[in-house]
Amino acid sequence: MTDLIINDGHTCTLTSPTALPRASGFLWNRKMMLHMNARGFATSQFMQPEPAKYAYAPNLEAKTFMQPEQPYYAHHPGRFFYLKDEETGEIFSAPYEPVRVVPDKFAFTLSTHDITWQIEHLGVRVDITLNLPVDDVVELWEVTVTNLTNRMRTIGFYPFFTIGYMSWMNQSATFDAGLNGIIATCVTPYQKVADYFKNKDFKDKTFFLSEHAPSAWECRREAFEGEGGLHNPDALREELACEDAIYETPTAVMTFDLALEAGASATHRFLFGPAFDEAEIATIKSRYLSAEGFATARRDYQAYIAAGAGVVKIKTPDAHFDQFVNHWLARQVYYHGDVNRLTTDPQTRNYLQDALGMVYIRPDAARIALITALSQQHDTGAMPDGVLLVEGAELKYINQVPHTDHCVWLPILLDAYVRETGDYALLDQVVTNAVTGLSLTVRDRMTAAMNWLLKERDHRGLSYIAQGDWCDPMNMVGYKGKGVSGWLTLASGYALRLWAQICADAGDRTTAATMRAGVDNLNTAANTHLWDGQWYARGITDDDVVFGVASDPEGRIYLNPQTWSFLSGAATPENQSLMMRAVTEQLETPYGVEMLGPPYSAMRDDVGRVTQKWMGSAENGAVYNHAAIFYIYSLFQIGQADKGFELLRKMVTGPDESDYLQRGQMPVFIPNYYRGAYRQHPRTAGRSSQLFNTGTVAWVYHSLIDGLLGLSGTKDGLRLNPQLPAHWDEVTVTRLFRGATFEVIIRRGEAKGVVCDGAALEVPVITGITSGHTYQILVTL
Amino acid sequence: MTDLIINDGHTCTLTSPTALPRASGFLWNRKMMLHMNARGFATSQFMQPEPAKYAYAPNLEAKTFMQPEQPYYAHHPGRFFYLKDEETGEIFSAPYEPVRVVPDKFAFTLSTHDITWQIEHLGVRVDITLNLPVDDVVELWEVTVTNLTNRMRTIGFYPFFTIGYMSWMNQSATFDAGLNGIIATCVTPYQKVADYFKNKDFKDKTFFLSEHAPSAWECRREAFEGEGGLHNPDALREELACEDAIYETPTAVMTFDLALEAGASATHRFLFGPAFDEAEIATIKSRYLSAEGFATARRDYQAYIAAGAGVVKIKTPDAHFDQFVNHWLARQVYYHGDVNRLTTDPQTRNYLQDALGMVYIRPDAARIALITALSQQHDTGAMPDGVLLVEGAELKYINQVPHTDHCVWLPILLDAYVRETGDYALLDQVVTNAVTGLSLTVRDRMTAAMNWLLKERDHRGLSYIAQGDWCDPMNMVGYKGKGVSGWLTLASGYALRLWAQICADAGDRTTAATMRAGVDNLNTAANTHLWDGQWYARGITDDDVVFGVASDPEGRIYLNPQTWSFLSGAATPENQSLMMRAVTEQLETPYGVEMLGPPYSAMRDDVGRVTQKWMGSAENGAVYNHAAIFYIYSLFQIGQADKGFELLRKMVTGPDESDYLQRGQMPVFIPNYYRGAYRQHPRTAGRSSQLFNTGTVAWVYHSLIDGLLGLSGTKDGLRLNPQLPAHWDEVTVTRLFRGATFEVIIRRGEAKGVVCDGAALEVPVITGITSGHTYQILVTL
Repeated sequence: MTDLIINDGHTCTLTSPTALPRASGFLWNRKMMLHMNARGFATSQFMQPEPAKYAYAPNLEAKTFMQPEQPYYAHHPGRFFYLKDEETGEIFSAPYEPVRVVPDKFAFTLSTHDITWQIEHLGVRVDITLNLPVDDVVELWEVTVTNLTNRMRTIGFYPFFTIGYMSWMNQSATFDAGLNGIIATCVTPYQKVADYFKNKDFKDKTFFLSEHAPSAWECRREAFEGEGGLHNPDALREELACEDAIYETPTAVMTFDLALEAGASATHRFLFGPAFDEAEIATIKSRYLSAEGFATARRDYQAYIAAGAGVVKIKTPDAHFDQFVNHWLARQVYYHGDVNRLTTDPQTRNYLQDALGMVYIRPDAARIALITALSQQHDTGAMPDGVLLVEGAELKYINQVPHTDHCVWLPILLDAYVRETGDYALLDQVVTNAVTGLSLTVRDRMTAAMNWLLKERDHRGLSYIAQGDWCDPMNMVGYKGKGVSGWLTLASGYALRLWAQICADAGDRTTAATMRAGVDNLNTAANTHLWDGQWYARGITDDDVVFGVASDPEGRIYLNPQTWSFLSGAATPENQSLMMRAVTEQLETPYGVEMLGPPYSAMRDDVGRVTQKWMGSAENGAVYNHAAIFYIYSLFQIGQADKGFELLRKMVTGPDESDYLQRGQMPVFIPNYYRGAYRQHPRTAGRSSQLFNTGTVAWVYHSLIDGLLGLSGTKDGLRLNPQLPAHWDEVTVTRLFRGATFEVIIRRGEAKGVVCDGAALEVPVITGITSGHTYQILVTL
Repeated sequence: MTDLIINDGHTCTLTSPTALPRASGFLWNRKMMLHMNARGFATSQFMQPEPAKYAYAPNLEAKTFMQPEQPYYAHHPGRFFYLKDEETGEIFSAPYEPVRVVPDKFAFTLSTHDITWQIEHLGVRVDITLNLPVDDVVELWEVTVTNLTNRMRTIGFYPFFTIGYMSWMNQSATFDAGLNGIIATCVTPYQKVADYFKNKDFKDKTFFLSEHAPSAWECRREAFEGEGGLHNPDALREELACEDAIYETPTAVMTFDLALEAGASATHRFLFGPAFDEAEIATIKSRYLSAEGFATARRDYQAYIAAGAGVVKIKTPDAHFDQFVNHWLARQVYYHGDVNRLTTDPQTRNYLQDALGMVYIRPDAARIALITALSQQHDTGAMPDGVLLVEGAELKYINQVPHTDHCVWLPILLDAYVRETGDYALLDQVVTNAVTGLSLTVRDRMTAAMNWLLKERDHRGLSYIAQGDWCDPMNMVGYKGKGVSGWLTLASGYALRLWAQICADAGDRTTAATMRAGVDNLNTAANTHLWDGQWYARGITDDDVVFGVASDPEGRIYLNPQTWSFLSGAATPENQSLMMRAVTEQLETPYGVEMLGPPYSAMRDDVGRVTQKWMGSAENGAVYNHAAIFYIYSLFQIGQADKGFELLRKMVTGPDESDYLQRGQMPVFIPNYYRGAYRQHPRTAGRSSQLFNTGTVAWVYHSLIDGLLGLSGTKDGLRLNPQLPAHWDEVTVTRLFRGATFEVIIRRGEAKGVVCDGAALEVPVITGITSGHTYQILVTL
């Protein structure tokens, strides 16, 4: 362990502003998301209904999906507090930017429901707390400045909230004495008349309100800086000019002159957010801008987060791992499932997997998601590239590119859902497509989706890839219509295998048998055409070139086909060993397992865009955690607990300082990737993308339940099949399941077997579960 | 006059880095444009064929058309040179950013063909020269560092050329020892397979080459800055690390350790630009990176610029005005006409007016432009919204919005062209539309365009506006199909009037008569429906509301209808006086005449987007120079020379220091606007947009020729009709015309009339001009 990151589970604290310069946490509510960097930079978005900003870059930034490894720079949007010793003229800023004076003490602390800093410098302590309410788009900031010395101090306190370049059409800002805050106004730029009607209800104002009246203020970014620059603004040496920004880049900065007796404190509260008009701002102000308003919002937000606590708490020999699982994992799953990554058209694949996570958080939401997705199923059985969540939403970005895997995720979600809830009645629910009018039961829609997967195959029985499968940017393997995906062939096998089991559990033996035949057919096709001697190929191009094979100098081995051959049952045990060895040798790194290797260094135009990404970033051979967790899940499925846990553990940064420094991330969320290309670029390998949108986390939960802890639902009850790594002797788990609580001790011992409430079980499945009852379970391995 | 800006005509020098923080100049060649700020910030674009960048913002910037009042911020792209006294550790940067130490001496000097700085600080002089070649996309930088002291000095010299955030897909940079430079590489981001084929020949590399080998280098932006920041980079205190940027924001910085004897100098040359591959970089290097290469490029570029010198040089009592006209005006006109504002789909209106300017610079180019535009005329006679200049170009941005004025500009260009050249044969040239196959003579196409203008009118004879006329953002007056443009009705009258005259001059009396009848009809309609008592209304909305009238609290009077009533002949002399008085009272400011007033403070949704722009910016009541110069041209047409010159003079900043400080611009180009809203926001009124793309400059030239100097072509010769302001007693002009040179003295005197080569003329028109002859003319007013 280390003094750099203090992780007590409930909170996680970073004690240096410079060691992990991109370290960050995030808060969200039902309408917004805030990605907060330890040094004070921030990226915030809200839905209206498309993602929008209220704090902008200093230039006209592109609208884009959330990007990994977003670079920070001096004028990046942020929330800052300058402090000035009025006697000496010395300044610093909290948390750290823009002045960048390393303070005597720095603590950036993340909890599940707030973000706080404690900064001490020049004999002054600055305590900063950031909260969000549950349902409004507004940031709640509380700052207490304390005189740590034993003499009277005069402190200039300057909250500085960047607003940025709002619009080339119209932007301005002024201080509104009635609201006691700076109100910036813009017109979202557009050129077509139709957009006027689309935009006219936008929240085009950004407000920064103070509870106390400032002694002065400034709305002009450049005038505030002067020649001194953000790190040493002229306005802090002179006086804030109390000038409006009139088609000048707006900012929000105020001065408060604090006269603090020895040991005394002053507390200030601020609101920052977007609004349609002053009336809306006044409403927000009256609701929140007070000690009581903040307290109520905090309580409500804690309750909101607590509602997403998930179904397991663990105590293992690895306390650091426990802290992640018990405090942070469910939260990240909940974020995905409750707000759909703040998009109106989530990729179908993402939407269904985020719902997979919600099976363990709020299964009712998972059920709704499945039905919502199925209601947009094409009448052919195919699933669309994205699921539209609001009226008027459109398929954007990658959802305009045809991908062929979306049906695969349906049975994966449904399997987890019915096993967790026992809600097999869902299969008979009728789902109507609002566009085509077609009404079918969930059961028939699932079968139609599986049949579509079986149909969309070539003469060899391999699955067409079109312009991508799970791997979005693998867009040129099959764009001419012939190329096939090895992964998708195997993944279809797994999907059908799960659907067969659900059908069997639900008593539909005919469909189960048909599906099992389909699995065999798919697996045979894969084994016939894709087995390369030590692993499965990734696919076969339009021009009939098999790739992801030993003879390829780059992209020689892909992780996904191996994983899904474990899941589909295609791989023999002998071949499983060969594959695992190949993966270990070619893809494993100290930071996890890479998704392909060696990474591509140049375009391979019969594979596509994935080969153009920077080597070791994203799908081009990063430790792409989504692929890594598939592999981990599959390892537990084939009983490879040691390797499964070893790789799972690497998803969470730390606890060694060297690991934190290399990855640059606090152990409070799993990013979509850590840099790969470990063998080519060790300097950057392991570096976190800091992007917390990832299908990974649902599968981490899924892997805990079905794999490591082995506390999976079955149709009739709870199956106990823990798979601890060899070096663990004992684990205790609290598992919530179908209304009951299971206090489970898993330990190694002589007397193998499961004892439930004192009675030994013949088979390790607890049935006839009584809701409300707490079961005491001992599993001896 | 002032010491702040030293304007000797050939060059213009700014002596402060802080007084006019956005002061700038620009260079261009046939493939690129570089907008260079005095402090070192730069915006550059090149055509491939769409505008592209090779130095990027620190974030993912939006692709957009060129914006006015672009804000600068610390990490804005720029070209900088850090200097470090190795004995004391003191640093500064030339020209000024990012360290922002005010040097002992600062000189930012613009000439027509290069941009130079001379900076003195810490006993060191830094002379910087920036050149472009004529046909390659590369910046040529020469920097000489001189030891001004009488002792040996050790100076660290660090050129720092920002590269910025190139791409989320792939970005990297490395030092290439063979090329002796930093080569950054990216993949232009895309998602659709079709874009791969569009993008694959892009110049996705940015190179920064040095003539001398550096002692160290750094490719990573963040590592270079460290915690010190751009103003005080860590790497200048330590050592440049010689590290590649591997999916890290690239930059280009090198160190050279200069050991300079007393008075000694060291000269360094650098190349900066985009390329497809290393081979192309090597070619560019061998062509330019030497003293000879630079010298040849300078000579060629001077010749290129000299070819655009225009047809008049003047000497008036206003030397400052002369300097602009003689050195800068033709250059800005030439820029527009030769590279079409670096767009592949110029607005038809802009394209034709830029060609109007070229009539006086390179009339052959003006002829080609007219034919190119007409070759894209619709078979209805309508002109398209933009003219496509390269294969595969598409109508973008505002060109996707239907505007109804494009035909108006045809006769304005043609009139100037035939009068300047005498090339009436153009009228019989056949022009074929490549899409529809229709072949028509220029004459017939012109008549078709005029007939289209006559046809697209409502029952009152007023011109439909659709979603805009000259005023692009006036998009909701007529979007329902009924609203009409008062300005367009009058402008159509002027267009037909000019075409009638051309037809008459060309002997086609029938068409001339038809067109004159059209003029009468248009003028009558305007006078019947649009005269508001003291001025003309701007239009009538879809809902039959007349606007731009005395009863409107905002947008009460628009400049354009008044202007074009002077041009079309609609206005009686009495009404002209009323209008001029109204304009003076309501629209004139110390910085020129506003295009409407009072500016709109909020959306008027039966007028449109123009009312949503910030008041006093762009079309919403700025001193929008394009509209102002129309007015000036029209004033000369009705003999109002004093007011015409008064407003013309205000287009050029200075010579008073207070004017420079307020407008923030050097007197080397006319921007598209100066801030208006003088009556509402005097603090910002006059501020320059710094945007040098503007149809204004063609009309400034046109106004000099046809107005102030009165040295206009006629079918058969040169007409002499100078209109000097009353306070001018004498002007001398050199006028090139149809191969001859006219040395003209215009002076006030008793014996009115024109003397040509000693002989008095009965009518003030010189006919039978002999190419190659120099005529000596005396005009006595």
